[in-house]
Amino acid sequence: MYRTHTCGELTISNKGEKVTLSGWVQRSREFGGMTFIDLRDRYGITQLVFNMETDAALCGEARGLGREFVVQVTGTVAERSNKNPKLPTGDIEIIVDTVTVLNTSDIPPFTIEENTDGGDELRMKYRYLDLRRQVVRSNMVLRHRMAQETRRYLDGQGFIEVETPVLIKSTPEGARDFIVPSRLHNGEFYALPQSPQTFKQLLMVAGFDRYFQIVKCFRDEDLRADRQPEFTQIDCEMSFVHQDDVLDTFEGLARHLFQAVRGIGFEGKFPRIPYDEAMSRYGTDKPDIRFGMYITDITKAARGKDFPPFEEAPYVGAICASGCAGWSRKQIDELTEFVRRPQIGAKGLVWARVEEDGTVKSPADKYYSADDLVNLALMTGADAGDLMLMMAGPREKTLNALGELRLEIGRRLGLRDDSVYAPLWVTDFPLLEWDDETGRYYAKHHPFTAPKPEDMKYMESEPWRVHANAYDLVINGTEIGGGSIRIHDSETQSLMFRTLGLTEEEAQQQFGFLLNAFRYGAPPHGGIAFGFDRWTAIMGGSDTIRDFIAFPKNNQARDVMIDTPSTVKKQQLDELGIEIKKSGKGG
Amino acid sequence: MYRTHTCGELTISNKGEKVTLSGWVQRSREFGGMTFIDLRDRYGITQLVFNMETDAALCGEARGLGREFVVQVTGTVAERSNKNPKLPTGDIEIIVDTVTVLNTSDIPPFTIEENTDGGDELRMKYRYLDLRRQVVRSNMVLRHRMAQETRRYLDGQGFIEVETPVLIKSTPEGARDFIVPSRLHNGEFYALPQSPQTFKQLLMVAGFDRYFQIVKCFRDEDLRADRQPEFTQIDCEMSFVHQDDVLDTFEGLARHLFQAVRGIGFEGKFPRIPYDEAMSRYGTDKPDIRFGMYITDITKAARGKDFPPFEEAPYVGAICASGCAGWSRKQIDELTEFVRRPQIGAKGLVWARVEEDGTVKSPADKYYSADDLVNLALMTGADAGDLMLMMAGPREKTLNALGELRLEIGRRLGLRDDSVYAPLWVTDFPLLEWDDETGRYYAKHHPFTAPKPEDMKYMESEPWRVHANAYDLVINGTEIGGGSIRIHDSETQSLMFRTLGLTEEEAQQQFGFLLNAFRYGAPPHGGIAFGFDRWTAIMGGSDTIRDFIAFPKNNQARDVMIDTPSTVKKQQLDELGIEIKKSGKGG
Repeated sequence: MYRTHTCGELTISNKGEKVTLSGWVQRSREFGGMTFIDLRDRYGITQLVFNMETDAALCGEARGLGREFVVQVTGTVAERSNKNPKLPTGDIEIIVDTVTVLNTSDIPPFTIEENTDGGDELRMKYRYLDLRRQVVRSNMVLRHRMAQETRRYLDGQGFIEVETPVLIKSTPEGARDFIVPSRLHNGEFYALPQSPQTFKQLLMVAGFDRYFQIVKCFRDEDLRADRQPEFTQIDCEMSFVHQDDVLDTFEGLARHLFQAVRGIGFEGKFPRIPYDEAMSRYGTDKPDIRFGMYITDITKAARGKDFPPFEEAPYVGAICASGCAGWSRKQIDELTEFVRRPQIGAKGLVWARVEEDGTVKSPADKYYSADDLVNLALMTGADAGDLMLMMAGPREKTLNALGELRLEIGRRLGLRDDSVYAPLWVTDFPLLEWDDETGRYYAKHHPFTAPKPEDMKYMESEPWRVHANAYDLVINGTEIGGGSIRIHDSETQSLMFRTLGLTEEEAQQQFGFLLNAFRYGAPPHGGIAFGFDRWTAIMGGSDTIRDFIAFPKNNQARDVMIDTPSTVKKQQLDELGIEIKKSGKGG
Repeated sequence: MYRTHTCGELTISNKGEKVTLSGWVQRSREFGGMTFIDLRDRYGITQLVFNMETDAALCGEARGLGREFVVQVTGTVAERSNKNPKLPTGDIEIIVDTVTVLNTSDIPPFTIEENTDGGDELRMKYRYLDLRRQVVRSNMVLRHRMAQETRRYLDGQGFIEVETPVLIKSTPEGARDFIVPSRLHNGEFYALPQSPQTFKQLLMVAGFDRYFQIVKCFRDEDLRADRQPEFTQIDCEMSFVHQDDVLDTFEGLARHLFQAVRGIGFEGKFPRIPYDEAMSRYGTDKPDIRFGMYITDITKAARGKDFPPFEEAPYVGAICASGCAGWSRKQIDELTEFVRRPQIGAKGLVWARVEEDGTVKSPADKYYSADDLVNLALMTGADAGDLMLMMAGPREKTLNALGELRLEIGRRLGLRDDSVYAPLWVTDFPLLEWDDETGRYYAKHHPFTAPKPEDMKYMESEPWRVHANAYDLVINGTEIGGGSIRIHDSETQSLMFRTLGLTEEEAQQQFGFLLNAFRYGAPPHGGIAFGFDRWTAIMGGSDTIRDFIAFPKNNQARDVMIDTPSTVKKQQLDELGIEIKKSGKGG
């Protein structure tokens, strides 16, 4: 037996017991004639003590143990004279009788401590050592906990976890599919799923009623920061439901996870904010509602005063930064720089501050009377001591810029505390998106998303007015999941395809297989998929999904630890009936 | 709201309630002026009733509902006059007020009944309809239950589920790897994992202590019956354990699953039978121990009598078929044919039967005296009324043939009841396998499997004598999982590589990356992996894993429902920098 206890469980109540422990040497210190070693395993750290006076040979042995050696010790639990209240085992130490070296270790390339001296690249190359760090491992434990609790909750709600295939079929739109050459059928390929969307809808046709899966998905895209070519979804679908049924069910999941994993409860229902309102109040479809600072549409009030930046603008909006009237010129210049960055691309911003006496000061006061300015302050809810920030331009772009500005000011004011969680549903997304380049509408979500019944009347005349039964769960400004009620009747589906400019033949070619299944009695259904990596990161108080994936790829989609992708032998390609193009990258 | 109840929950206690149900039309019958419809959903079947006299229009509507139409009804729960005790809802029916057709259905290509008229190919093509059959869906529910309970148990034992990557690296031995061309790195490839073996050992190096994962694995092999290119494993690894710790832990898992999923308990520990004993007693390393009928080595007793089939044979073995002395010549001829089939390839068998008076009759009695034959009967435990069957030849081949014969007789005698489960551990497998073709030893399990300490002394002199700390879990003659204690010290690992005829350089090239990790303090560790599809099938009383996979591939590795693998556009291949070889299959 390698151990009687782990390194995390002995307390003063074990005093006097003979125990055996196994673990890694975290550090060792000498102090007079004593040698102290911190022995570490997954469960904690226990202090070992060796006394040169009592047993010089053993103590010498202990002094020979290097960092990260794997050792087994037996000894007696004793009360520490110098207790460490930060450690669960901090009241005790082990007076060691015997030491067995189970394995030696080379000196690790970086320190295995909470704050390591290893850079990103080095830690990724030696990920198995990085994962020894408690801070990294606890992220994986959190992820495990999230997965367990997700399954516990959904199982309790009657959902069945069904594994859908990984070797599926590339679709005509599947430009970002990873494909897998078939050896048995040379010249043919499987594709890895970007999501199990088709299969989960088929399971509803099959009468499974409630399906879920925690499942790997794949997307071969040019990687932006913090995207992974393989990622994990909590994928769900339900039959005989309306939008509210789906939202209630998965709000329940979110509540369960927050409670079980973080011990956090929420009072009342999560806010449900229609997309249009999210855009006009927060300038984004994923608002961070940990703080207010709503956007106010001041177009009407701002125009007609010949103020050049506002006069011709289709839209003028403002936010009110509470208590920021005292911000310096430099601070305001920083904000102007912020909104002018190419990612935001605004031309600038106009400020106005409400003085203690209620008067409003602004560089635009040549154009606006004192009353005009007070009126603007009233509209935006600005009070004495507050700072108004105004921007103008095309509506959507300006709203986005105001939304970014709002987040930046929220950050500066400390209103975005990682330990505070503010979840909400954004609902009623637009059904369609117009694409200027191809001159046609595209489905914003996917072509099976159901229009809102009350908007059906606009489908042919004014398609842009049609909202969808589509929804996102947003936490702290991050979308962590989204879904929709699906179209289940062929009439609506045909209308949708017509609106997307697809002929019956094209629709049949692209989606025929699912449409075929729908001919045999598809129930009303809808679902949702959550980004599991992202949700876990947020629960861990982090923005970086890479920290919550055991073996992530870097932003060149490369695993530097195992060094993949890599070349393969020609014989292997021969068997698959493929070869590497001499000319390199084509097209 | 689509329903107030499911179709499986209403009982007499709901009598008089107004309810709304949604589901599929299973069947409808007319009886006098009444129409009865069975409404089906995942949860059950509820009878709807329509009366021509009360509401002719509604009843007419009901008569227009086709098989598999999706309908919503409201009505009142009433007591049936003609109760159906086989249905949980069989005491009640719904007197329907309103019917809404949610969706129509084409006539399905086969009947959605327990016994369908659809052939295999048709059912696979319309798998989403096949999955509507209660008998198929219940297999998926069993699988879900198995997965849930596996996680519940292992989580309770302190195991952490960690997702290992799917896009990994092809290894030199990875001839059966599926590979995935990289678009970002043309000319390079990922590979899909045949198992997460390397990663789980890395997690032990990382100090995770107890890891598990229910995980998809991939193997591009020529498919034998009932193999799948993608399959699911319960993959596990533990640190600071000896073989018994692993066996105890996963025997616990097996007990938990049998109890939770099938309500079956086992008294006492699972038998642990060393490989050598399994081979000599059962002729196989995966014995079906639901019945005895052990193999007896009668080589010494059978030889020296000039009986030609036995005289020169290196091995003669026998089994005793209890109570089969009365089997006809024809029956025995069938058994002879059975062992002569090419899959078994024996030359024949020799029988002897023990008469009621204790004398033994055999066609070999020209060579064996009455005493000789009685002696053989005593050796094999044959009693009055029993039949002895004897075979001779090379030891291993003959044992295998006797093992197959034993299973066949067990089957004929009804000793292999699918509802009886007899699990056992087979332990102490040989470490190495000699390959005549290449003239060297191969690791039977994998090159990291630890030799038994007591056999280490033979490693260099008589490697074939070395047993491994390797084990299989066998249920009813099927191996459902296997694993080993791993080598964790570099000295033993070097010795192992030498024995396998690998130079340091070759070992470094093939396994360098894991060996590298092992330099930083690898703990003693070991693990196991279970074939989840197979285990689930056995729990469902079936041999066919395909019935326990929602969307399986056929034995040409093809999904006939979605029609994959399939061709992809040239543009897609161009982007990946590959092309299809004109000459078709190479080398």
